[in-house]
Amino acid sequence: MLASIAHRVPPLDYGPWEQVAATLTEGLVARGHDVTLFATADSTTSARLHAQAPAGYEEDPTVDAKVSEALHIAAVFERAAQFDVISNQFDFLPLAFSRLVGTPVVTTVHGFSSERIVPVYRAYDDVVHYVSISDADRHPDLHYAATIHHGIEVDRFSAGDGQGGHLLFLGRIHPDKGTATAIEVARRAGLPLVIAGPVQDEEYFRRAVAPAIDGSAVRYVGPVGPQERDRLLGGALALLHPIDFDEPFGLSVAESLVTGTPVIAHARGSMPELVRPGVSGHLVDGIDEAVRAVAAVHRIDRAACRADAIARFSADTMVDAYEHLFREVVAGRVPAAGR
Amino acid sequence: MLASIAHRVPPLDYGPWEQVAATLTEGLVARGHDVTLFATADSTTSARLHAQAPAGYEEDPTVDAKVSEALHIAAVFERAAQFDVISNQFDFLPLAFSRLVGTPVVTTVHGFSSERIVPVYRAYDDVVHYVSISDADRHPDLHYAATIHHGIEVDRFSAGDGQGGHLLFLGRIHPDKGTATAIEVARRAGLPLVIAGPVQDEEYFRRAVAPAIDGSAVRYVGPVGPQERDRLLGGALALLHPIDFDEPFGLSVAESLVTGTPVIAHARGSMPELVRPGVSGHLVDGIDEAVRAVAAVHRIDRAACRADAIARFSADTMVDAYEHLFREVVAGRVPAAGR
Repeated sequence: MLASIAHRVPPLDYGPWEQVAATLTEGLVARGHDVTLFATADSTTSARLHAQAPAGYEEDPTVDAKVSEALHIAAVFERAAQFDVISNQFDFLPLAFSRLVGTPVVTTVHGFSSERIVPVYRAYDDVVHYVSISDADRHPDLHYAATIHHGIEVDRFSAGDGQGGHLLFLGRIHPDKGTATAIEVARRAGLPLVIAGPVQDEEYFRRAVAPAIDGSAVRYVGPVGPQERDRLLGGALALLHPIDFDEPFGLSVAESLVTGTPVIAHARGSMPELVRPGVSGHLVDGIDEAVRAVAAVHRIDRAACRADAIARFSADTMVDAYEHLFREVVAGRVPAAGR
Repeated sequence: MLASIAHRVPPLDYGPWEQVAATLTEGLVARGHDVTLFATADSTTSARLHAQAPAGYEEDPTVDAKVSEALHIAAVFERAAQFDVISNQFDFLPLAFSRLVGTPVVTTVHGFSSERIVPVYRAYDDVVHYVSISDADRHPDLHYAATIHHGIEVDRFSAGDGQGGHLLFLGRIHPDKGTATAIEVARRAGLPLVIAGPVQDEEYFRRAVAPAIDGSAVRYVGPVGPQERDRLLGGALALLHPIDFDEPFGLSVAESLVTGTPVIAHARGSMPELVRPGVSGHLVDGIDEAVRAVAAVHRIDRAACRADAIARFSADTMVDAYEHLFREVVAGRVPAAGR
């Protein structure tokens, strides 16, 4: 299991790629598989841990990210013969090593940060097995072995009652995520908004978010770890997710649904695969529709929302799907596209 | 031959790593070796050219540098069995691939941009053969197979007469290179200064360089290609090289010496290996000493300066040294440190 090393595994607060690597690793170990997790040295896991980097490069200014990545990825491929399959949760750089070893590589594509990174995926389409994290995120030039939605460790998220009375924004503070749109929706709905997540775009935060923060109508609580996420999500009337990009998957959306808190999301990217209108939230287009959806959100049955989410986005569901795929790949029943 | 792909090979103007790859490749081909140059598609070479990237990532905004690098490096290592030896002129990322192939890798360390990149060199010290580009640049933690100074294609640099009457600054506009110091030295020496090279630090350029540019006492001509370099260097009274860092090698210094133009340099990094005081210039400490050295520079014999430089920094000298090293490595007579 080749994890991203921007953060430790599992992440203390932000780090969706590392969270997925953690959830998948724990699930596979629980099923009796012999897993080696390649991650930062401060990671915690039931698997065997192999670490090159002492800590995540986003958290440790003394390391050079590129150096750390090179050593980390090389460590897996230099030991490839020890493994039946390499699960790559890292991004594209490991692809460049994949023709140099005999072990099959299954790469989870956590999203295309830009069309400029597609050439390297295209170059290894014939040898690497790709997993898309939503049907919406599939690139037309690539062949995929499966779509596997991210799964949540559902027992870490309790059934919430929405009694906090707030709307919630949970994610990176960035124009893509629509933080300022969420502020406007909450203002017009006349409800308090809690904003949680790391600031990724400082200029956007200063210009479009910070001026609205007053500690009551709009509160900013920074990045939040698992317990605080559970509390904030479960207490929310709804999660606002007015994204301005085609998000490949929204881990915070799935987490919200598992607590029973409905999600009001822009109908872009993977959102139609995550939110079932009228059952677990609403898909909207713009601020007016979002405000109307907030007014109607009390009609969503939180228990039904949670039940639906557990059926579709539990860790068990995800681990089942990966376990099946890994077995098929190891047995040679899933040839890579060009083979 | 694995070249850097920031620029084409040879570079049109700036690009010392690519220039060294070009000079070494041409020299080896001229000696009858079968060389494949891995470089950008717009490169020109007498060798067989293998290109992944259409153009240098510093010159083509449509490519992602990291993607381009990954595809470029993988292309060499996926074909490693075809080669007796891989000459890595790229930097550290290829090291991470080196244990996955049987072909020996000789890595020219073009300098350590930061102490934070040393760990990856340390991790491959036992398998990769390192070449330092000056004795001064050797890192105490690493083992080296040789020090090989860069060589210049001396017939591309004519004997200059210094009749331009100017002092010259040639290199990146960056505090490390001491552009502002050169301006002050020229002002106090009462001589015109020509500044040539790309702006690497925009803020430094605006603050410390641009205000002095008046088109006569101080002229800025931007990055310059081979012919213009030859003309500017040969016409200069002296090259000012008041570096503020331990420069691993100064290609522009060697070029200047080959035209017969003496160099006045801060006595740091590789400068004591390049400049022979009284023969080919002066090593100084600070502005006062530099101004005194300018006043004395007419006593340097330009013909002797050029002859000394050709003996020590010709392409032939460099290619001899690499050819010898490659033969020894291929014959197994230079084991890597840990073997």
